[in-house]
Amino acid sequence: MAFETWGTLDADASNAVLVCHALTGDSHAAGPSGAGHPTPGWWDALIGPGKVLDTDELFVVCVNVLGGCQGSTGPASCDPETSLPYGSSFPVVSIRDMVRCQAEVALSLGIDRWASVVGGSMGGMQALEWAVMYPDRVGSLFLASTTAQASAQQIAWSHIGRRAVEADPAFRGGDYYGVGVGNGPQHGLSVARMLAMVTYRSDEVFRDRFDRNVQNQLDFTLGRTFDIEGYLDYQGRKLVGRFDANSYLRLNRAMDLHDVARGRGGVAEALARIGCPSVVAAVRSDALYPPYQQHELFEALSGTGTPGRSPASTFVEIDSPHGHDGFLIETEQLAAPMARLLERAFGR
Amino acid sequence: MAFETWGTLDADASNAVLVCHALTGDSHAAGPSGAGHPTPGWWDALIGPGKVLDTDELFVVCVNVLGGCQGSTGPASCDPETSLPYGSSFPVVSIRDMVRCQAEVALSLGIDRWASVVGGSMGGMQALEWAVMYPDRVGSLFLASTTAQASAQQIAWSHIGRRAVEADPAFRGGDYYGVGVGNGPQHGLSVARMLAMVTYRSDEVFRDRFDRNVQNQLDFTLGRTFDIEGYLDYQGRKLVGRFDANSYLRLNRAMDLHDVARGRGGVAEALARIGCPSVVAAVRSDALYPPYQQHELFEALSGTGTPGRSPASTFVEIDSPHGHDGFLIETEQLAAPMARLLERAFGR
Repeated sequence: MAFETWGTLDADASNAVLVCHALTGDSHAAGPSGAGHPTPGWWDALIGPGKVLDTDELFVVCVNVLGGCQGSTGPASCDPETSLPYGSSFPVVSIRDMVRCQAEVALSLGIDRWASVVGGSMGGMQALEWAVMYPDRVGSLFLASTTAQASAQQIAWSHIGRRAVEADPAFRGGDYYGVGVGNGPQHGLSVARMLAMVTYRSDEVFRDRFDRNVQNQLDFTLGRTFDIEGYLDYQGRKLVGRFDANSYLRLNRAMDLHDVARGRGGVAEALARIGCPSVVAAVRSDALYPPYQQHELFEALSGTGTPGRSPASTFVEIDSPHGHDGFLIETEQLAAPMARLLERAFGR
Repeated sequence: MAFETWGTLDADASNAVLVCHALTGDSHAAGPSGAGHPTPGWWDALIGPGKVLDTDELFVVCVNVLGGCQGSTGPASCDPETSLPYGSSFPVVSIRDMVRCQAEVALSLGIDRWASVVGGSMGGMQALEWAVMYPDRVGSLFLASTTAQASAQQIAWSHIGRRAVEADPAFRGGDYYGVGVGNGPQHGLSVARMLAMVTYRSDEVFRDRFDRNVQNQLDFTLGRTFDIEGYLDYQGRKLVGRFDANSYLRLNRAMDLHDVARGRGGVAEALARIGCPSVVAAVRSDALYPPYQQHELFEALSGTGTPGRSPASTFVEIDSPHGHDGFLIETEQLAAPMARLLERAFGR
């Protein structure tokens, strides 16, 4: 398991916060770009000295997920039995598997209990599972742009992305490693990424940013002519350059399989295990994880409550045109409710 | 040009209605399935004896679009110069090109003026262009689930579908005919169709119909396990069996290029040419052509008006969870405003 930490763990290990990353994120949640980190931390505005996750006071940890391709074991890792990459033999993992691995990381760091577990999208799924699986090890919970159960539409998008990758002959059933640099399913992964990008953004921001602008002059061919087309092609290429297709398939599948109710008698029963305070944040323009899903989650979290505890849950609507990606972009609007949650978690 | 007609043209050719089909539609707008028509007419509930487009009184015409693959000349047609299918040499066509061809069909049928031109989605684009290009030849206009200009998000979806087709090695740059049955870009076209299907429906109907239902038992692999996945695969296969990929690319491109403003000084200036009464219908759950687009269209149509005419436009919101496909499904809700428009068109 690859992870990054910021700040110093207290003597009584009471100041640890776990940040969980989303689908194509990694453990570099904060800090500048540098070796191994081509971009600054994906939540850099929230994590650091004097920021809401104040690393002068807190010990912040972010773990790359199991099955990923940014340091933790995944399909591109070497199988010790064969000395070859796992490839197609790497199993599907679940959000619960990711959390189990993070629990091992926590123990190795001497952290029995997180003051807070926070995350958005797939990161929010992990945070939620943390509180259900290990209710005594989570002091508070911050869930952004996520859901208690993947919806049919979310599974649909995920399925189409998988089909695009699998249809690429260079995918070779998942055993494309070592065939030569640049020989993975680049076209398929690029198509998958492009369609995901449209679901992450919104009609509103596309209109504002691209509208019907053309690159040079309007071209009456099948070739790229509109700015939005160039943008999508660029986004597709960019992901292909930094992400492994086998990981992409498995992490999407993990999200499809995400269902806090599974094996627990229902959503309400599962969430009844959670006694800690929580914040559920929704971005008003999120078409992929629409606000009604966070509202349902909030209602289930509020309605539960273990005897003797008061699991106060707060619903926050982020006013943003940025769609699902709002949880990465609207850090100012996330910071205030996150600060109040931490005050509560630390009994201030 | 392939077309189908229902009813009888009056002696003074005053009872003709043109129905324009959408992307993968065809000229079989009404009537049962049969030879060459594997499915019943796509607007059968609206067209026929005693129906709103009453073929006891009206002469209804539906023309397969130029560039399509259901009878009219398209990329799969034989190029007389080479005696081979056009394939990659078939040009991109515009909505205006489609309308010009329909105008020729009208003249060949002895129709100088349509009592009404009606259509949804790409069909609505054609209807709108009819009224802008030939304002004296259109008596009334019914526009459902359409827009004055394709938006960046619509172009985005279209672009990704094209990339999926082009990435399929079986596409061969568009020259895949004659290589053998079943050798076109089936995987690519199937991915394009699957993603289009998600944009045509809605989260709401997917939840109601599929939710997280599984086909057999929940399978922790990358294989198909959820009902929604089987549905999408089926929809992909179905289109591959009935539609030509080269047509799909070009008709999508025609929609991207759709812009009533182009060469006319702006949307308002273009729509100022329209003096006939119109109805603009929006489906409340349409995420692909959201209701604000029809509302903008309605406002532009209402605000215009040639001197001496009163181009009354009516905005109708269809209350339906069915998303963009609502224009095909909610025929009862479409029938009432369509009937009122026809009454007006015929001066009743």
